[in-house]
Amino acid sequence: MSLAERVISGDVRAAARLITLLEDGSPEALEEIDKLYPNTGRAYIIGVTGAPGTGKSTLIDNLVSGFRHQGKGVGVVAIDPTSALTSGALLGDRIRMQRHSTDDQVFIRSLATRGWAGGLARATLGTVRVMDALGKDIIMIETVGSGQVELDIFRAADTTLAVLTPGSGDDIQMMKAGILEVVDIIVVNKADKEGADYLKSDLETMLAAAKRSGDKWVPPVVLTEATSNKGTEELNDVIFKHREYLFSGRGMEKHRRERVRLELLENIEGFVKDFTNIIKTTADFEIRVDDILKGRAVPRQAAEELINLLAERRQKEKG
Amino acid sequence: MSLAERVISGDVRAAARLITLLEDGSPEALEEIDKLYPNTGRAYIIGVTGAPGTGKSTLIDNLVSGFRHQGKGVGVVAIDPTSALTSGALLGDRIRMQRHSTDDQVFIRSLATRGWAGGLARATLGTVRVMDALGKDIIMIETVGSGQVELDIFRAADTTLAVLTPGSGDDIQMMKAGILEVVDIIVVNKADKEGADYLKSDLETMLAAAKRSGDKWVPPVVLTEATSNKGTEELNDVIFKHREYLFSGRGMEKHRRERVRLELLENIEGFVKDFTNIIKTTADFEIRVDDILKGRAVPRQAAEELINLLAERRQKEKG
Repeated sequence: MSLAERVISGDVRAAARLITLLEDGSPEALEEIDKLYPNTGRAYIIGVTGAPGTGKSTLIDNLVSGFRHQGKGVGVVAIDPTSALTSGALLGDRIRMQRHSTDDQVFIRSLATRGWAGGLARATLGTVRVMDALGKDIIMIETVGSGQVELDIFRAADTTLAVLTPGSGDDIQMMKAGILEVVDIIVVNKADKEGADYLKSDLETMLAAAKRSGDKWVPPVVLTEATSNKGTEELNDVIFKHREYLFSGRGMEKHRRERVRLELLENIEGFVKDFTNIIKTTADFEIRVDDILKGRAVPRQAAEELINLLAERRQKEKG
Repeated sequence: MSLAERVISGDVRAAARLITLLEDGSPEALEEIDKLYPNTGRAYIIGVTGAPGTGKSTLIDNLVSGFRHQGKGVGVVAIDPTSALTSGALLGDRIRMQRHSTDDQVFIRSLATRGWAGGLARATLGTVRVMDALGKDIIMIETVGSGQVELDIFRAADTTLAVLTPGSGDDIQMMKAGILEVVDIIVVNKADKEGADYLKSDLETMLAAAKRSGDKWVPPVVLTEATSNKGTEELNDVIFKHREYLFSGRGMEKHRRERVRLELLENIEGFVKDFTNIIKTTADFEIRVDDILKGRAVPRQAAEELINLLAERRQKEKG
């Protein structure tokens, strides 16, 4: 059996293996993901973003327990922005792993963003596909919302949650990053801290101002205290309300299309990147470097000439 | 006069304008950068990396003063990893700006890494070219060393400095990130803090283990206290010693080549990205999205077909 077939049959180890191959940017992994396609499209995708320290991981943990209580199979993809000089949020991940480690209906996976052969969005969406094919009903994507790619992934979810805390100035940063325009639900966590109510009303004002035209959904602001599980139930209700809203209109269709667009684009970028990687290993590339060093060429022009040369060569080889 | 000609004549405002265009990913900016080429290649490039909070900016500030004292024109390019949810290190930059703001021989520029049309490495190297053409003798590139691109840029400098502080665990992170293998000088800042001497000897052991074969330079560990300017003079001396070392062998040649390789590659990636951006605006792209949604195609295969289709069309258009 191929990895894809094993994933479809519910083999968790095959799923883990396939995701690892995907992380490594393996072309075989991408072919296997293609094979999963007919068996995907049923999962509901929830995007969760928030700065480090907002308690996002504990909140997700609570939501996972709630979904499990409702009998749903759950997947979590955490995009871990492991920095070269500052260690990532691996600890939170391990804590979650422990709590749900004996539950085979919960599949949690961290994707490190550093030193990747493949694209971050491609690996994330691929991982979502794997969990979808594995039969997970709800898949959460956890990001810190710091880069354009993370924002794109967040945008491609069905329901998006942004987690903030009082007194952090997160609301201003979120507004600047354009998250307010794409968020469906805002969570003010650590609501026992001073200023939570003020932040809530502040956010409601901002959300009213940022209201998307033609969109009837007004993003609600939910107060939670993740460490004591307060507000989780309300949050769960609000998520399902948003889900109903999407199904009542053309929302789901729109999101599925958005995800496919992103996946197709990521695949195109992957191929194009392979082409670039080939260029830089050619003798022609080094000849051009010499030319530039000796003042006989300039980078932009040399780049264009190299691309044309190699595209022509590629066309000839193919036909 | 073109922007490039104005930069070469020493026009600081033209330089600032060109860098802004470059940040926006403007094709004209790239053409202007090409024109600068014949007037560049004289500047000495210093890469400085370190986690936030290591006092890297203050240290660079001290070095700038030292270089100015030696009569050198100085440029600083700070790659600011402004996160969508956490604000960047702009404050430090503003403080530096103030101290050297009346000195027209110091050119400081922050490049934000978020939401860029162009590539980070391309904009950074382009900015270095602009400062080089403007006549700066020494150009410092400040990074937080968190991503592969930042590491590539760091690697392309003539002398590389990594800044650490005692008790932060930065040394372990640096080792993991592969910085130890490419660093020329290590600075232990805040050397008045407990554990500085221990960290120094620890680093020396690690550096001995990571020693590059064939390389006669043993990266020294310099203790500094940036806030009181202690150790700056010694650090300055060590930098010039490393410079002499490079000039005595083939080091400079190697670094210049490395920078040109990176610039050529960045230009190739830029063109290729333009091609991708064109693909996603075509009707063919949306047709393929429909095919995938309806189960008539899968992303990877559809991506390959789209690329071939548009590459062929492009070839035909050209003749």
